[in-house]
Amino acid sequence: MAKENFADKLVAAVKKKGNPICVGLDPRLNQIPKVIINRALVGKDKSPTQAAAYAIIEFNKGIIDAVADIVPVVKPQIAFYEIYGAEGVRAYEETLKYAKSKGLLTIADAKRNDIGSTAQAYAKSFLGEVEIFEDENEVVMPIFDADSVTINPYLGWDGIKPFIDEAEKYGKGMFILVKTSNNSSGDLQDLEMANGMAFYEMVGHLVDSWGADLVGESGYNSVGAVVGATYPEQAKKLRKIMPNSIFLVPGYGAQGGGAADVAPCFNKDGLGAIVNSSRGIIFAYERLGFDPNAYAEAAQAAVLEMKNDLATIF
Amino acid sequence: MAKENFADKLVAAVKKKGNPICVGLDPRLNQIPKVIINRALVGKDKSPTQAAAYAIIEFNKGIIDAVADIVPVVKPQIAFYEIYGAEGVRAYEETLKYAKSKGLLTIADAKRNDIGSTAQAYAKSFLGEVEIFEDENEVVMPIFDADSVTINPYLGWDGIKPFIDEAEKYGKGMFILVKTSNNSSGDLQDLEMANGMAFYEMVGHLVDSWGADLVGESGYNSVGAVVGATYPEQAKKLRKIMPNSIFLVPGYGAQGGGAADVAPCFNKDGLGAIVNSSRGIIFAYERLGFDPNAYAEAAQAAVLEMKNDLATIF
Repeated sequence: MAKENFADKLVAAVKKKGNPICVGLDPRLNQIPKVIINRALVGKDKSPTQAAAYAIIEFNKGIIDAVADIVPVVKPQIAFYEIYGAEGVRAYEETLKYAKSKGLLTIADAKRNDIGSTAQAYAKSFLGEVEIFEDENEVVMPIFDADSVTINPYLGWDGIKPFIDEAEKYGKGMFILVKTSNNSSGDLQDLEMANGMAFYEMVGHLVDSWGADLVGESGYNSVGAVVGATYPEQAKKLRKIMPNSIFLVPGYGAQGGGAADVAPCFNKDGLGAIVNSSRGIIFAYERLGFDPNAYAEAAQAAVLEMKNDLATIF
Repeated sequence: MAKENFADKLVAAVKKKGNPICVGLDPRLNQIPKVIINRALVGKDKSPTQAAAYAIIEFNKGIIDAVADIVPVVKPQIAFYEIYGAEGVRAYEETLKYAKSKGLLTIADAKRNDIGSTAQAYAKSFLGEVEIFEDENEVVMPIFDADSVTINPYLGWDGIKPFIDEAEKYGKGMFILVKTSNNSSGDLQDLEMANGMAFYEMVGHLVDSWGADLVGESGYNSVGAVVGATYPEQAKKLRKIMPNSIFLVPGYGAQGGGAADVAPCFNKDGLGAIVNSSRGIIFAYERLGFDPNAYAEAAQAAVLEMKNDLATIF
């Protein structure tokens, strides 16, 4: 039996929760409340990276518990876990697992990319299942088991295809970098092509074609695109180029984008985009003047504030 | 005191060993000799991913011991480790550490990329040191401690800068994807620009400018480029565009490239490129008809065969 299409699941979750908010789980130890850090440091048998992983998991669980009933999806950025090596990656696995157990959809923000045979290894670990050993010793198990993953398109189709295959098999999806939110995203992405388009527009056309086989009943396809909130003019063009792709929109909040900036990422049906905020939500206790111990309540308040802000679009 | 420049270290190692070979450590469990797998499976207390990590580490140590005196550099591809989650990443850390202890330079083939603040997390974990906790609890430690890392340029300068900073501080380097070895690398990389260049040529010019501050006494800079052996015509153009960059050349051997194909990647001084082979060396026992238990000797034979082949270039 074919698994339910990822885009359909995401659209359903957005409708159910009544907002398109993605909470970015980008933990930074120096902003995690001291009381959690102190608990993590108790016990001499923990290595520094184990203690870091402990703090991250406890912090993330607090955030996830606070937002699980409100938002449809969370996005842990793997760089902030991998920075603590194997122990950090364990915290990443646990974060994805915990978010799933609370009914949230997940985006593994990993921006992975490689040639076909290597991309297949990434696709299996992030989206599918991994076969370990052979014959009578074989074990088949999920590793990260995210609902979707971010991918860099620089290597072209054969670096994308393995992710499409796993997405089809397991009802998963992906978001391919098209126009990123950072200041220098134009260095490559805005270069002018011989046909008059900007490079990011060409990539948009490719992403649209790559997703054609994964269109769900919602009309959206499971091959989404990363389109930064910081470039609304470009988003407007991309919305036309990729009518069926769901945009993952970073750059709201801490990076400077507001509701008006993300508006062009949506279709007329009010769907077609999810808007990520990381620091603006998870460390909202600093911005909103909450006690650090009430960081989860602050995150909840920030999510509700963002929900109200985004509601002004429609 | 400034650390020794990475490009200088790499050039010196190539001269000392008398060849530009990079051994790709891309372990695949189903090709690791059964005797190692069986040892890994002993003991009921190991999880499947722990057993996989055990097999990978033992296999890699055998390869590293066999090639350490012959080649200048090794390149573990992180996808084949990350596929086993946290335990696989632990095997990755151990592989890098063991290679370093045997005097080899290392390339972490991770193709990482992200916006500035996130790229900084990757740069610290792969090339620099990571500060864990603050004040009296602070610990500063290396995590992956590779000599260099592969990077995807799609996000432009502010995704590269953090790697440059760590490279300068710690005497490390990087290889930025320019023209990759896979079949569909042209989907984006060969697109024609308004100025008549191909996209990969524009990226080559950017990489050349990005590396300008990290030129060593050898005349080479620590910002290298990934240029596939499978595209010799393009390599010829890129050699002119980036005269001071060291090319990391994948695609030799299993992917189809030979000595004639990699020749255009070298400068007239016989330097300027390192040529990677992964499957063709580490699983040479299959191709050369060695007993699986002699996989390390087979790898040694394959390296010497490759050394002779590459010597025909000069």
